[in-house]
Amino acid sequence: MGIRCVAIRACGGVLQRALSLHTAHATKDMDNLFQLVRNIVPALTSKKHKGQDGRIGIVGGCQEYTGAPYFAGISALKVGADLTHVFCAREAAPVIKSYSPELIVHPVLDSSDAVEEVEKWLPRLHALVVGPGLGRDDLLLNNVRGILESTKARDIPVVIDADGLWLIAQRPALVHGYQKAVLTPNHVEFSRLWDAVLSSPMDTSNHSGSVLKLSQALGNITIVQKGEQDLISNGQQAPARSWWLPGVRAHSQGSVTIWPSRSTGVPQPLPT
Amino acid sequence: MGIRCVAIRACGGVLQRALSLHTAHATKDMDNLFQLVRNIVPALTSKKHKGQDGRIGIVGGCQEYTGAPYFAGISALKVGADLTHVFCAREAAPVIKSYSPELIVHPVLDSSDAVEEVEKWLPRLHALVVGPGLGRDDLLLNNVRGILESTKARDIPVVIDADGLWLIAQRPALVHGYQKAVLTPNHVEFSRLWDAVLSSPMDTSNHSGSVLKLSQALGNITIVQKGEQDLISNGQQAPARSWWLPGVRAHSQGSVTIWPSRSTGVPQPLPT
Repeated sequence: MGIRCVAIRACGGVLQRALSLHTAHATKDMDNLFQLVRNIVPALTSKKHKGQDGRIGIVGGCQEYTGAPYFAGISALKVGADLTHVFCAREAAPVIKSYSPELIVHPVLDSSDAVEEVEKWLPRLHALVVGPGLGRDDLLLNNVRGILESTKARDIPVVIDADGLWLIAQRPALVHGYQKAVLTPNHVEFSRLWDAVLSSPMDTSNHSGSVLKLSQALGNITIVQKGEQDLISNGQQAPARSWWLPGVRAHSQGSVTIWPSRSTGVPQPLPT
Repeated sequence: MGIRCVAIRACGGVLQRALSLHTAHATKDMDNLFQLVRNIVPALTSKKHKGQDGRIGIVGGCQEYTGAPYFAGISALKVGADLTHVFCAREAAPVIKSYSPELIVHPVLDSSDAVEEVEKWLPRLHALVVGPGLGRDDLLLNNVRGILESTKARDIPVVIDADGLWLIAQRPALVHGYQKAVLTPNHVEFSRLWDAVLSSPMDTSNHSGSVLKLSQALGNITIVQKGEQDLISNGQQAPARSWWLPGVRAHSQGSVTIWPSRSTGVPQPLPT
């Protein structure tokens, strides 16, 4: 069975089981969700060549953290992308390479020409994920700032997670109003972004309203606040919610946002 | 099935099989033991965030030994901890990282500022395991001495095993009277500690009395003497015993103290 069939079945299974725990959802809703997933995961076809179904860049991976960029990259492949390029610090590269021969790993993120090295690849990438295993070293963060500016200039979609969000809290202008940015903060990262962008205290009794407000304050960029229920808003309307399986939450390195890495990093048999 | 469910079932299986070999144990005792295990393994809940169910530090890993700190770290994750940080010698780090992307590995233990590097993380750790794959290099042992002093000053629980016990045999004062220390010597390590702390010869016909005496001589710290029957004492009363499966004993690198790593490091189907 091809990896995409596995991915489609896994996604379907997750949705089916998750939704079966929430009986308020009608069968019709579930059918709609399956259709959504089908729309997202590229169909298997021999008409395409390698790369057409997604070339994804991951920016992250430093001395301490090598697991998170691996999880982000391998997850992208498992849900249908054709190629992933990981741009990480020199020391992290052989380790990330060793996790899987399927990842293309560039040891450039701590070099003096990191921005130029990544810029070479940007025209070939469909989307960028910035932050998994990035850490908070000033040199790396400064290089990532330049990479984000180049990414915006080329109008490439970018998901920002983990210590990428630390950078955004320091420099909200980097993504302000960029409609192709998606921020995926957990509870702590969300509070940090709130404090950086809004002067009023957060209403902790109204998560949904807070997500809407932060999205608007950042120029209507999309925010996925991760938690027991994920809240998703682009500032236009009250946030949508998504559910995870009970008891499944992030552990180990990083906290990339799709299901497998929230449990054990690589796809596991679902709870029965 | 979630990884913690697997861990609970695995622990349950070990206990069930072990106890079935000792018919003196009534069913009620077994029920109590299952309850004990349930109390130890954190309940699955989506109410918590990553890290709340345990951030564990492992101090060990050198040029020769890279397996033991991996076994210690991955075992901690498999029985319910959320995060493990391995602090090891520079040369060991890429190897330990490559065993699993779930471990966070810091290549600091042979650096001149090793103590400061570990001290940065200590306030975030719930417990420390000192010794797996440590070796007996003077530089490493001296750094570990400083780390142990910092750990005590912060009142953090510490399990000391393997060559961590070699260090304790050289400097018993490092743990004397520290109630949050647990030593886990095998037969040879126990004799070495005895010779370092007590002037009288050990009564080899009375293991239980010897464990009690050594614990008392070290200021009532907890000792788990590993063997056919483990003997556990905090110096207050005659040691409790625990049983392992016949034929299951420590092998390969190190001898970390929980069941999975006593056999092959990661949970395996039980012998039948």
